[in-house]
Amino acid sequence: MTDFVDFEQILDAYRHQEISLTKATEAIQAQFSEQLATVTVDHDRERRTGSAEVVYGEQKTVDQTVEAFTAVASKSKNVLGTRISSEAASKVASALEDVEYYPVSRVLQLIRDPKPQLDTSISIVTAGTSDEGVAEEAALTANFQGSPVVRCRDVGVAGIHRLLKVVPQIRTCKTVVVIAGMEGALPSVVAGLVDKPVIAVPTSVGYGASFNGLAALLAMLNSCATGVSVVNIDNGFGAGILAHRINSL
Amino acid sequence: MTDFVDFEQILDAYRHQEISLTKATEAIQAQFSEQLATVTVDHDRERRTGSAEVVYGEQKTVDQTVEAFTAVASKSKNVLGTRISSEAASKVASALEDVEYYPVSRVLQLIRDPKPQLDTSISIVTAGTSDEGVAEEAALTANFQGSPVVRCRDVGVAGIHRLLKVVPQIRTCKTVVVIAGMEGALPSVVAGLVDKPVIAVPTSVGYGASFNGLAALLAMLNSCATGVSVVNIDNGFGAGILAHRINSL
Amino acid sequence: MTDFVDFEQILDAYRHQEISLTKATEAIQAQFSEQLATVTVDHDRERRTGSAEVVYGEQKTVDQTVEAFTAVASKSKNVLGTRISSEAASKVASALEDVEYYPVSRVLQLIRDPKPQLDTSISIVTAGTSDEGVAEEAALTANFQGSPVVRCRDVGVAGIHRLLKVVPQIRTCKTVVVIAGMEGALPSVVAGLVDKPVIAVPTSVGYGASFNGLAALLAMLNSCATGVSVVNIDNGFGAGILAHRINSL
Amino acid sequence: MTDFVDFEQILDAYRHQEISLTKATEAIQAQFSEQLATVTVDHDRERRTGSAEVVYGEQKTVDQTVEAFTAVASKSKNVLGTRISSEAASKVASALEDVEYYPVSRVLQLIRDPKPQLDTSISIVTAGTSDEGVAEEAALTANFQGSPVVRCRDVGVAGIHRLLKVVPQIRTCKTVVVIAGMEGALPSVVAGLVDKPVIAVPTSVGYGASFNGLAALLAMLNSCATGVSVVNIDNGFGAGILAHRINSL
Amino acid sequence: MTDFVDFEQILDAYRHQEISLTKATEAIQAQFSEQLATVTVDHDRERRTGSAEVVYGEQKTVDQTVEAFTAVASKSKNVLGTRISSEAASKVASALEDVEYYPVSRVLQLIRDPKPQLDTSISIVTAGTSDEGVAEEAALTANFQGSPVVRCRDVGVAGIHRLLKVVPQIRTCKTVVVIAGMEGALPSVVAGLVDKPVIAVPTSVGYGASFNGLAALLAMLNSCATGVSVVNIDNGFGAGILAHRINSL
Amino acid sequence: MTDFVDFEQILDAYRHQEISLTKATEAIQAQFSEQLATVTVDHDRERRTGSAEVVYGEQKTVDQTVEAFTAVASKSKNVLGTRISSEAASKVASALEDVEYYPVSRVLQLIRDPKPQLDTSISIVTAGTSDEGVAEEAALTANFQGSPVVRCRDVGVAGIHRLLKVVPQIRTCKTVVVIAGMEGALPSVVAGLVDKPVIAVPTSVGYGASFNGLAALLAMLNSCATGVSVVNIDNGFGAGILAHRINSL
Amino acid sequence: MTDFVDFEQILDAYRHQEISLTKATEAIQAQFSEQLATVTVDHDRERRTGSAEVVYGEQKTVDQTVEAFTAVASKSKNVLGTRISSEAASKVASALEDVEYYPVSRVLQLIRDPKPQLDTSISIVTAGTSDEGVAEEAALTANFQGSPVVRCRDVGVAGIHRLLKVVPQIRTCKTVVVIAGMEGALPSVVAGLVDKPVIAVPTSVGYGASFNGLAALLAMLNSCATGVSVVNIDNGFGAGILAHRINSL
Amino acid sequence: MTDFVDFEQILDAYRHQEISLTKATEAIQAQFSEQLATVTVDHDRERRTGSAEVVYGEQKTVDQTVEAFTAVASKSKNVLGTRISSEAASKVASALEDVEYYPVSRVLQLIRDPKPQLDTSISIVTAGTSDEGVAEEAALTANFQGSPVVRCRDVGVAGIHRLLKVVPQIRTCKTVVVIAGMEGALPSVVAGLVDKPVIAVPTSVGYGASFNGLAALLAMLNSCATGVSVVNIDNGFGAGILAHRINSL
Repeated sequence: MTDFVDFEQILDAYRHQEISLTKATEAIQAQFSEQLATVTVDHDRERRTGSAEVVYGEQKTVDQTVEAFTAVASKSKNVLGTRISSEAASKVASALEDVEYYPVSRVLQLIRDPKPQLDTSISIVTAGTSDEGVAEEAALTANFQGSPVVRCRDVGVAGIHRLLKVVPQIRTCKTVVVIAGMEGALPSVVAGLVDKPVIAVPTSVGYGASFNGLAALLAMLNSCATGVSVVNIDNGFGAGILAHRINSL
Repeated sequence: MTDFVDFEQILDAYRHQEISLTKATEAIQAQFSEQLATVTVDHDRERRTGSAEVVYGEQKTVDQTVEAFTAVASKSKNVLGTRISSEAASKVASALEDVEYYPVSRVLQLIRDPKPQLDTSISIVTAGTSDEGVAEEAALTANFQGSPVVRCRDVGVAGIHRLLKVVPQIRTCKTVVVIAGMEGALPSVVAGLVDKPVIAVPTSVGYGASFNGLAALLAMLNSCATGVSVVNIDNGFGAGILAHRINSL
Repeated sequence: MTDFVDFEQILDAYRHQEISLTKATEAIQAQFSEQLATVTVDHDRERRTGSAEVVYGEQKTVDQTVEAFTAVASKSKNVLGTRISSEAASKVASALEDVEYYPVSRVLQLIRDPKPQLDTSISIVTAGTSDEGVAEEAALTANFQGSPVVRCRDVGVAGIHRLLKVVPQIRTCKTVVVIAGMEGALPSVVAGLVDKPVIAVPTSVGYGASFNGLAALLAMLNSCATGVSVVNIDNGFGAGILAHRINSL
Repeated sequence: MTDFVDFEQILDAYRHQEISLTKATEAIQAQFSEQLATVTVDHDRERRTGSAEVVYGEQKTVDQTVEAFTAVASKSKNVLGTRISSEAASKVASALEDVEYYPVSRVLQLIRDPKPQLDTSISIVTAGTSDEGVAEEAALTANFQGSPVVRCRDVGVAGIHRLLKVVPQIRTCKTVVVIAGMEGALPSVVAGLVDKPVIAVPTSVGYGASFNGLAALLAMLNSCATGVSVVNIDNGFGAGILAHRINSL
Repeated sequence: MTDFVDFEQILDAYRHQEISLTKATEAIQAQFSEQLATVTVDHDRERRTGSAEVVYGEQKTVDQTVEAFTAVASKSKNVLGTRISSEAASKVASALEDVEYYPVSRVLQLIRDPKPQLDTSISIVTAGTSDEGVAEEAALTANFQGSPVVRCRDVGVAGIHRLLKVVPQIRTCKTVVVIAGMEGALPSVVAGLVDKPVIAVPTSVGYGASFNGLAALLAMLNSCATGVSVVNIDNGFGAGILAHRINSL
Repeated sequence: MTDFVDFEQILDAYRHQEISLTKATEAIQAQFSEQLATVTVDHDRERRTGSAEVVYGEQKTVDQTVEAFTAVASKSKNVLGTRISSEAASKVASALEDVEYYPVSRVLQLIRDPKPQLDTSISIVTAGTSDEGVAEEAALTANFQGSPVVRCRDVGVAGIHRLLKVVPQIRTCKTVVVIAGMEGALPSVVAGLVDKPVIAVPTSVGYGASFNGLAALLAMLNSCATGVSVVNIDNGFGAGILAHRINSL
Repeated sequence: MTDFVDFEQILDAYRHQEISLTKATEAIQAQFSEQLATVTVDHDRERRTGSAEVVYGEQKTVDQTVEAFTAVASKSKNVLGTRISSEAASKVASALEDVEYYPVSRVLQLIRDPKPQLDTSISIVTAGTSDEGVAEEAALTANFQGSPVVRCRDVGVAGIHRLLKVVPQIRTCKTVVVIAGMEGALPSVVAGLVDKPVIAVPTSVGYGASFNGLAALLAMLNSCATGVSVVNIDNGFGAGILAHRINSL
Repeated sequence: MTDFVDFEQILDAYRHQEISLTKATEAIQAQFSEQLATVTVDHDRERRTGSAEVVYGEQKTVDQTVEAFTAVASKSKNVLGTRISSEAASKVASALEDVEYYPVSRVLQLIRDPKPQLDTSISIVTAGTSDEGVAEEAALTANFQGSPVVRCRDVGVAGIHRLLKVVPQIRTCKTVVVIAGMEGALPSVVAGLVDKPVIAVPTSVGYGASFNGLAALLAMLNSCATGVSVVNIDNGFGAGILAHRINSL
């Protein structure tokens, strides 16, 4: 976007009259944009170095998804696709080797150069088997970025002894993602038993007055336990990104 | 409302021409109304025999409340007043001996002939100290009708060990009223630990996205545990009545 | 999960140095977990002794449903499946003898060793014919557990005389499940005519401002009659479980 | 607004050149406006002839209310004020003779020349005593316009026999206003028992999940009985106007 | 349901000992039920005399609809079916002569003995062409019962002159049904121009923040014009019934 | 914030070594910030030159309001205060000459150097007298910035002829602000009669199902007329700013 | 609709007794209707002169759409169709030459006589690629009427530097349409950077707690920046019309 | 609660017959409870060692607040009170030395033994001055626990350059709390500029369609930027606790 590495180079080029005032001004403005975008640029670098780019398939047709995924795969070593239909996944798989599809979470993954995994882990806890899809999306997202995951499945509050058994395991992790639909009570109970940040993910599991996850969402926002924050309904991907961000601290 | 005890008496009076057709028809209709109203009439009998009548103070002025309460007290031995302001309570107390006021629950009670208490009990469990008012309303209502109450206070899910300690106590009761605001998770956890009917009472305790108890209400309706049913927000009175009804079975 | 029957056995094994401190501690912890889980364990026992397990089909594919149902049928004599599609039911039926499918309620049942029925009954009352599916789910669930059911169909409040005719029948039961969509008025009327616990089930029957059962749900929560509590929209299963729990008292 | 009585007069004035084209055009336009406004103009006439004008006090200060009421009273023989605070009512009463204030409904009325009452009546039915204020507003509004009112108080659905007793009375009327808060079930039951138009008025009586009358409003909109239509929450005035409009047919 | 015509007959039969006490009591109770159900019984009579019965197809399968429709047609001369799918309509048409299907409103009608039409009419006014289906349902329902209908189509408020042209027509009718989706403004405007009862029908026409008709519903409930009441979203049938009820006064 | 006027000056100072690299970089960054903030800076300039600054009083105490207003008045010739309580207004008035308070709209204004008014006008139209406060806030805001305002009061849709009379006046303006509560129908009708941009302002005027302006808001968003856009409930200020922005084009 | 050109002609015809009083009155009324409808009539003229008519396909069947589109095309040179399914578009294309279909926005266009474009432009800014369909609808609508469009794609707030780069471009336009789903933050940021009217369009892009665009809609209505107004969710067409209306000033 | 330090001690006491089986069982159960409650017990320890306990004043009377605060102060060196009224604060201050009251956030603090502060900081960013109260509650809570805070005030998205200036500061912190009312856009913008976990706090700042913070809450849950999670509306305390928990990792 600009041929200059930093302000000094621009200023000196102008001082030595190698560039006009107009050119100098333009170069400075381009430079500034890049400065603001530091984080993004870092991300860009990450991509160029072969690790990560994400394709979101929800509101794409099969063709758009395939095109997007293969486009990213042509410049990145690793690609993560979320909310990919099985039909789109098949098409991608016939075009690209080594992609792996996880039908429960609808994640499609291409890993040609796995990221080194961190020493510390993320715990991912679910209330019921129907929450498994969201949990897997969170887990695969975290793994993709380099965070190991400890999974505690189906420990909903209606059988509290199941949860108590896994508490020691949860306590070994740096942060915990808690996923629940219906009444969304699990994050409150977990947050009362561990002193790590709890990322609560409401799911749309339920019917009637669950209003597609609204009941669980409200419950989690009103947690009587401290240390809980909430992401969007069914947002396993977001929870995985945030958990990794915390795990990287 | 009618001078006849039953259909037979009416029919025979007519057969013996002691009453006209019109009179017989009227008597039958009155009789029928009373039949339909059996339950209510039972209640009436109850009142006449000196035990129970309820005064609801929420949408009454101080004067209306005082008038209603003293009116009932003139024909019933026992009176229960719910949602009575302290101002109204004082006025009633200066007019009637032996009334007792419970400021936390805003219950005003006059008991001159206590009901015999049942052998089985109701357990009343609260998530936090702010739920105490609703719990007390439920407890006093249950007591007033003749149900002993076991109270388990402040055992919210953020400190699950507190709840586990009182489970044996809860299990001794015939039914359990579980009262919680905020995320309303407690009934689900309790219902997973006991096999008695659980009456869940959402409270308006909370702020922001609790939307005055809506969050707790939705959570309770979506309980992942079986055996839970729900009454209106802050409806301690309703829970007390229903719990006694079950306890009387 | 543990080879010891109770604390005494563990403590004595340790006292007699038959087990190490570590082993004793582990055994105690396992024991404690089981204690907490008494109810669940009881359920487990129930299953092992051949009576009950439930398969919820709503958010499962046909294959998942078939797999779940046959798995349970391999270890339990009786199996109850709710919200099972007709397609899944056919597949199960071709694999297992004696299953029975109820298309209106989408219940799939395998009863090889029927539970003895209680002496007391549950009354199940519906407002209209469209509520029949939810009613049947409740009735089959109650029967499955051992509660006889008295059904009163299509006695909605727009023809109050239809309801009045069945009141005596309702009064013979220990508890009553009242099922209604649209304006959800029926539980209030019933609760004013009988003195038994009323379990209200709102249904999603209706359109427009019924908002998929929200109107009926709110109406039931605001019942002007005492003795009413509410379960989730269309939750016939939950009502059946709770009604049996009360009927068992 | 115009000196001409009708089109003919204008056209003839123009034909005889008593007025210019511009003047004629203006006169026609004014005339047309009045034509469109026929109904309103009729109302105007009504006012000028001394019968009716309404002052709505809800969002007015005491001074604004007093000013509005006395202004109308200076040109109309009869004045109806709704949602008038007692403070404003006192001030008006000290300025004007013969005003009457109804504190329960907050209606303030000045009737110096009562309207002749129609031969047919309106029935106004309430579910509970807390609905009395809205009912009185409806009744006074109907009376003010010339409709006699038959009141049936406190016949809510929790005691259905109370309602059955008054059905014959309701059936004598030309239309029926049914007022209820909480679960709002009464209009459905009434509409199943009478074949007159039912105007349902939800009230904000209730708490918690009544959401200030929303529960009753939704219930009434979803009535399973035919012949029911609904006005705004607490809108006794609107129901009174509409009922009179129907009663006048 | 009972062999006795009235109370007198029963009482006399008992007086002359033609029937036992038990029999007399039963007969009286049956009689009473019928009394309460007078209106319904009238309807029954109506059916028996060959005019009206309604089949609601919304939540029925094709087979259920066909069965219901033909069942009614076997005992009634005229049948009205609402929300009937075209598939069900075809099946009915192949079984029964003379049925007529209206695809826009999904009304299926069988009229073998048309009701005599009243002298007074109902006006049915729509805001846009998309409201036509609801309007036709209302119109056919009204006709079926015996009310002539005047239709004013597509006179929404965005072109107010279109409405003004039809006002004289509307004024000739005894009541007016106003049907609108989107912002639901039309009933307010109409009610300001005519002095007849206005029945407002919100429709689900619109998208986004119309929330399936909620916007129009709320608008109509808050009408600044008097004389407006509201039925459920898309409830053309209900409006037709109510309009006829008013038209019959 | 920076002593340099533009890039050229900075670059030349560096070229001539009057400033260090660090200093030059800092100066450029400061400069860039100002560039981004051009619009804001223009506003700043505007303030310094004596015309405009706004004090929002809603969530301020009396003292905070007074302090904010006098602070602005010390550097600006003209000050606009919105949502100012009468108490705060009095205090400001006793400290500053020439402030003017408008109690209906709660606007407090200090104009020592009136802005020149544009040649084109804004039309502000209200449905009822209760909308006057919001209208006045919009009008004063527009005037303050330099836009003349044509006011059309109390022309709600229940009396459509009132609106028709003022249409010619509205058509002379460059844009029109339409303010309505209750059913919020007025903007749709106006937008069908004029071809200028319509800014719709829902107000919280109403009760019950108006839900504090939600009904009007939804209605306006669903306008069947084109050319309408909507601002927040009661946001007269925002409408005034936007209307002036359009009027300035 | 009338044979007279203006009032003068009618009045003179009457003066000269060429027409009767009745005829004159009728002619005046017809004339008046047309006067009220001036704007509409202008539109009509526009149509007759070959430029614009819009077909809305959302709630039409394929056949209805085809019929509507071809009907308009037979009398107008240019036709704009919005929300047209690809199936309907194909059918139209096989019947009419020169139609162009835009599948992303579902716009179908026939332009045989393009409107001259204005000198000033509209800027259309989107937050993400999923907003492209709504943006294209807005852009094509604006073009169709004669407004050039500057598009700034995919400049959502999560990468603010992308937006900053296009600000100068946006500032050259007369008004700006900002389109965003999810959190709907973009209009606030844009309105803080430019001083032109901002038309905000919330889209249904998102999931879970976006509630089909409600989150974005509420955010935009609460913009902390001035100069923003909002249209319905996904209403690209409405934004295009309004933007052109402003651009034409 | 138990005199034994660990399982070993209990088991050995039993082995050596110093305690009975019953006593041993009781001791084990008590021990187990404490084990489960490890975190809580740690908190207890913390309290006993003089650092932290929190008093929540929202739903307490002045007397209850004073009593609670002084009770805690008698056993803890440091006390944090949130949502304390100024009246309660004054009363506490007259009873206890060294308490400090922060009226904007309604925090009341007693620090007699300040916690050592961590090396890493939390950034607290606000959109506007009205968010200051919530921000201060978060900041004081974080400080109280030992986290230094960097505050960036009033950098809302309507003036994006203000935010850009403080980005470098934010980037130095380990986590960032972003607080905003109205459209709640700030967290999305911040999360796009920094790669740290973002804790979003919606505030109830706003009016109309902000619905007391709902608009901001929904916006934050739908953030298009990754790394954002959300706490309850106005929950500065919860954000402070969570931020410290992350900062302690």
